[in-house]
Amino acid sequence: MTDDELSVLTANETFYQAFATQDYAGMDALWAHGKPATCIHPGWSALVGRGAVMASWRAILRAEGMGIESSAARATIAGDAAYVLCFEGPRGEPPTLIATNIFVREDGRWRLLHHHAGPLARPPETVASGPSN
Amino acid sequence: MTDDELSVLTANETFYQAFATQDYAGMDALWAHGKPATCIHPGWSALVGRGAVMASWRAILRAEGMGIESSAARATIAGDAAYVLCFEGPRGEPPTLIATNIFVREDGRWRLLHHHAGPLARPPETVASGPSN
Repeated sequence: MTDDELSVLTANETFYQAFATQDYAGMDALWAHGKPATCIHPGWSALVGRGAVMASWRAILRAEGMGIESSAARATIAGDAAYVLCFEGPRGEPPTLIATNIFVREDGRWRLLHHHAGPLARPPETVASGPSN
Repeated sequence: MTDDELSVLTANETFYQAFATQDYAGMDALWAHGKPATCIHPGWSALVGRGAVMASWRAILRAEGMGIESSAARATIAGDAAYVLCFEGPRGEPPTLIATNIFVREDGRWRLLHHHAGPLARPPETVASGPSN
């Protein structure tokens, strides 16, 4: 694993830690500033713009968060952008969602620019099919 | 709209044209070669690697395709990577899916590196909320 892959996976973990601990300030600190953030919550249309995205997280973190965890995360680096695929679900249970998280490098740190989570039709038998790299 | 935004939206449209016309060769030509492609079909786990991704498209394009269209596409450029958000659905009907499509620049052309489509809980009232840029 490269340093970039490790650091973007760490940023991805920071996102789920903020989610799980209902830490709005931590969540806010993670999202990008240089481009309009976007977010697709499960079943939702796209939210566009940092204001709309953070308002959704403020509401979601008031209502839920505790117990969520990510698993089987894998990162792909493309210059100053990167994306992570991972599962999401209640801690210790089979995952119910799968996410695409896009990060961009801002001031030397990976920040979240886009989050898209959608349902898994059934718990995955394996974390992913095909070669991992 | 910048030239890059226009060209990545054109590549995105090429993807849906190949899908709609069940054009496997066109689909194959669009996907990236420089990094392992990934794909999350609605409800599926992640496919990882060009072989697994293209095998899924070969099977899908045998079975379906005609009539799908994308709408409300918007592009974000991040250096030599970009992503497009758009709706998907049967032509002329309210969209049923929303997609995140990640492109990378290869030899001066935008190629698809990751596709993630998931269900909309209900037809969107508006194409997106918040500012468009």
